[in-house]
Formats: sequence, C-alpha cells, structure tokens
Amino acid sequence: MQIKEWGEENFIEHLARNFNSDPSILGIGDDCAVIPTGSDLSWLVTTDALVEGIHFLKGQISAKDLGYKTIAVNVSDIAAMGGRPHYAFLSIALPKETEQHWLCEYIEGIKSACTLWNIQLLGGDTVGSKRDLFINLTLVGSANSTEIKYRSQAKAGDIICTNGTLGDSAAGLKCLQENIKTSKNAEMLIKAHFHPNIELEQGIWLASKAEVHAMMDLSDGLNCDLKRMMRKSKCGASIETAKLPLSQALLNVCLTQDWDPQALAVSGGEDYTLLFTVASDKFEELQRSFQRTFKSPLYAIGHITPLIDVIQYICQGKEIEMNQTHFDHFQ
Amino acid sequence: MQIKEWGEENFIEHLARNFNSDPSILGIGDDCAVIPTGSDLSWLVTTDALVEGIHFLKGQISAKDLGYKTIAVNVSDIAAMGGRPHYAFLSIALPKETEQHWLCEYIEGIKSACTLWNIQLLGGDTVGSKRDLFINLTLVGSANSTEIKYRSQAKAGDIICTNGTLGDSAAGLKCLQENIKTSKNAEMLIKAHFHPNIELEQGIWLASKAEVHAMMDLSDGLNCDLKRMMRKSKCGASIETAKLPLSQALLNVCLTQDWDPQALAVSGGEDYTLLFTVASDKFEELQRSFQRTFKSPLYAIGHITPLIDVIQYICQGKEIEMNQTHFDHFQ
Repeated sequence: MQIKEWGEENFIEHLARNFNSDPSILGIGDDCAVIPTGSDLSWLVTTDALVEGIHFLKGQISAKDLGYKTIAVNVSDIAAMGGRPHYAFLSIALPKETEQHWLCEYIEGIKSACTLWNIQLLGGDTVGSKRDLFINLTLVGSANSTEIKYRSQAKAGDIICTNGTLGDSAAGLKCLQENIKTSKNAEMLIKAHFHPNIELEQGIWLASKAEVHAMMDLSDGLNCDLKRMMRKSKCGASIETAKLPLSQALLNVCLTQDWDPQALAVSGGEDYTLLFTVASDKFEELQRSFQRTFKSPLYAIGHITPLIDVIQYICQGKEIEMNQTHFDHFQ
Repeated sequence: MQIKEWGEENFIEHLARNFNSDPSILGIGDDCAVIPTGSDLSWLVTTDALVEGIHFLKGQISAKDLGYKTIAVNVSDIAAMGGRPHYAFLSIALPKETEQHWLCEYIEGIKSACTLWNIQLLGGDTVGSKRDLFINLTLVGSANSTEIKYRSQAKAGDIICTNGTLGDSAAGLKCLQENIKTSKNAEMLIKAHFHPNIELEQGIWLASKAEVHAMMDLSDGLNCDLKRMMRKSKCGASIETAKLPLSQALLNVCLTQDWDPQALAVSGGEDYTLLFTVASDKFEELQRSFQRTFKSPLYAIGHITPLIDVIQYICQGKEIEMNQTHFDHFQ
C-alpha cells in the first residue's frame, strides 16, 4: 500500500501508537508538545515543514513573505496553546541553482517575523537539495503551566468561537490559481494567504481565562480541525452556517466569481485564526472584555454537543450537508 | 549569484550576522544551541536535515538504518557538547508513492534508536512532497551548564584527540559507489556508513573533565571540522598523519583497491566520532582513565598551535600537502 491510500491521519495514529510518551508530557496530536520544567513554566515545542510544490510555489509567493510565513505558522501553534515564542531553529534544503538574492530576501522575511514576535533564531541546518526547496522550522516557546489550553478540553454546552474571519486564505489561493488578481478584494484575500496575521496576544489572553476550555489554531480548515478537536475532547459540534464570520472581501469576490463563501469558510485551510470553546454562562462577559481589550470581535459560531465525533451544520434551524473537501497531504 | 557559488559557509555567516542573539545563549555555529534555564541545567537543541539524493539514496540504505541514522546524527551533536538527549521532533515530507511497508520499517528504525538512547518522540509534522523524501529531526537534550564543551575552547599546546577511527564511513560510501560489497571488510565499512555508533556516554564523561577544553563531533571530515574548531578557538592545528587512527578494515580495503586511507581519514565525512582537545600535562592520565572506564582507546593525533586558522599535516617530521576535498552541500 502507498501512503496516498494509507492517509496522513492513519500514519500519525501509527506514530502515536508506537511512541507512548511519559504521561506528564502531552505529545503527538496537539499544536505543540508541552514539556514541564519543574517550575511554573512549561516549554512548548512545535515544528512545521514547508515544501515547494506542495505548500508554496516559488514563482508565486515572494521570498520575503515565505520567510515571514515560515515563522508565522509556528507562532500560530504556540499562540493556540497560550504560549509565547522564544527560540527558532531553521532547516533549509536548497537546490544549488537557488539565487543568493532570493535567499537574502527570504532571510529578511524570517528576520522581520523574528523581530515582530521577539524570537531568536538560534540554529538550524543548511543543506543541498536535488530539486525542490524544503524548509522546516522548530519553534520553542513557554507558557504558564496552569494556563495552557489543549484540544481535549471542550465540554458539551460550550460556545464554539473564532477570533477572526474564515476562508480568506483559501479564497486568496483560489484567486491565484484562477488568475484573479486585479481587484482590491482579491488582493486582500491573497495577502491573507501569503502574509497571515497571527494574533499572539489574543491567544495568551484567551488562555489566561478559565472559562476558555479547548483551543487550537485553524490551519487545515474549520471542518478538519474541528473534527480533530472533537476526537480529542470526545464530543461533537453544531455549527450555525449563518454565524460563520466572513470578510467583506470574501463576500465580494465570491459574488463576482460565483463561489460559495460558506464552503470556503468550512473547508479552506491556512486561516491561522484561533478556534476555541467557552463556558456558555461566561461567554457574553468574555466577548465584551475581549472587545474592550483588543478592539476586535469574538465570533460565536455554534456549540459543543455530546454526540461524539459528529459535526452538524445548521442553516435556518435545519441540518444541512456542507460542500466540503478534506485536505490530505498525501493525496 | 547562485548558492553553489556563494557557498554554504558564506550563507551561514550571513545568517549569523543577521541574527545577533542574546549573549547568554550560544547560538549558530556550534553543535547545539545552549539555552540556560536558570538552574544548573541548560537545554541543548540541535537539528539535522536529511535529503533524498543528497544524504542518502532510498535504494541503497534500508528504511530501518535510515530511521536509526535520523536519530543518531543528532545524538552525536548532543554528545559532542556533553549532554544527554531527551525529546525528538520529526518532520517528514513524503512523496505520495511512498510504500507503507517502507514507512513502517523507517519508524521501526526511529523507535529502536529512541529506545537505545531513552529519547521520547514528542511531535513533528508529516507532509507531502512532490518528488524527493525530506527528513528533519530536532533533538532537545540537557547538560550541566558548567560541563558543556564548546568548539571555541582549544588552547595552544593542547593535544588533539579522537575517540574512534577515521574514514570508515567515507570508505563505506566509496565501496557502495564503486559496487565493492563482497568482502567482510567492505561490509564493516558500509555498516559504519549506514549505522554509525554514537558514543554518548564517552561524550558525557569527556565533558565532565576540566582538562578537556574544546569538543565537537566529526560529521563533515576531520579537515573541514578541525578548520571550524580552529576558527572558533582562534588557533591552529598540527596533525601527525602517522597517528591518524585507521581501522584494519579500512587498511585492508584501501590495500586491495589502491585507495589512500589517510586521505579518506582526513577528508571523509560522517565519522560521528568526537574531536576534542586536552591540556597536554593531563593527557596521559586522561587516556589511562578513559581506557579503564570504556575498555576503548583515546587517539592523540596532533596538537594545537598558535597559528590562527593554519592546519599543518606532518609526516616523518616534515609538513606535507594532504589530498583533500572539502564537501560543500551546495556544490
């Protein structure tokens, strides 16, 4: 059997079964591994690979944006557990024809992101590659051990929330693929794809609240990531499609292109917003407090149900089938 | 300019210039980054990438040996600073045609190495790849802060030592390339290439001795790695070619194939033995104590000179030119 049939999730489960780790450590399967230090702080470690032709096309994304994104997608994982990033380790496998100019711009992007989040690049590995460019970043952060949020803590009745709009990045990618670049709206969506905002301070703030139960970042699309949270939390989710937060840019481009904005919001990857659940009786107060602190809204999109692994989409009081595609790296 | 002209060392220097890190942290340029924790222990972090077609050929190395080697080359970096490995993070980019059987064998190799050195695999990233297989491992370890050994501590007059023979792995690779596999000696050299021994306990023991000054692992060949140590330590080295430790297997294969064993010992990469310098007045005592403890010899191969960046090879009292090739990942 080839990996394309076996599938990514099955391979990860095979890994998890093979490596039973110390029960004091939360390992494979969350946004970061959490390593206790004996003090009030825990270390958080996350790692993300970016492969040419799979995650990016060199002719499409600028070297500087790719550098920024290399750091940003990992900061998103640290933010999703409520931590602060500190140290980065960059591995890069370069075809020998790589232009020095491109590489310097790429490093500029890395540097600007490191400056933005006060991260130190402490090491890595630079090697050759026969054909494609490969990038791997490992990011080490820390968090107060008692405030770390996991995917496994959602409770039936919780309100499901995000801190940003959904589907913009996926729509930006679609604009690139279909060569729609001329409008201001398309430009905004493409920017969301190439240069995602990571709301680190919002993640830390949310993690400090006891009424926030489960948290993760949205990297592979709401439906796919929500399924992961439901599996870990042993519960289900009911999403009200009318409440999915959609940007004006997404709505405008979808209108002109006849795309389904809700399908993009549900299936599209690389949003890098936070997905989290909140005790229902504390939600309104949290929402007001969040708005006061960040001048930015929280979006309630549904609630947690006791139906294990079941995700329901509700439109005008009725359950509907969503037009979904699940992204598997090996297919 | 392309990266093949710019060169690996220049790119790494560009990185180091761009990322001035906290002076309490020793970053880019040693075997591991050293992160102080406030207690007596420091964290050590190292990362190594392995790329298909550059570091290995899938048809040549078994999946299990590749798994073992993925961990081993990083353990070598931790050992070279005197630390103990704890946590691993594996990123792997897989072409979709990768066989499940191959992948399970690969994970078996990872697991056996993790068991051998008591390492926990805590996370990583599994993604697709268009064509080549790409592996990155980040390994986190710890060491007593006062016992960590750096490349920069060699002093004029020090004895230069290794804890193992040199050139076996490079000769093993040459056997594979020239299709010499039939003799027992060739098999031993190929094994050194595919399944290098890492003497972790020897590294920790050596690091605990104040008379051991500088230490690093030999991964890119004695000449190349010694140059790096000399640059960091601001001194030079004089190597007696007659003292280069050569295995009987290497000598036998070199005799039948008419290869130069000393050239392989000086230029060949992937030995993963330790290169270190010892205060000359303490050397004999250390050597005896090492032999008693590990039932294995230390090899003195030369001494440190005050001639900054100059590496001399001495044969029968006269300086000679060594037949060398420097390995650059981008050429």
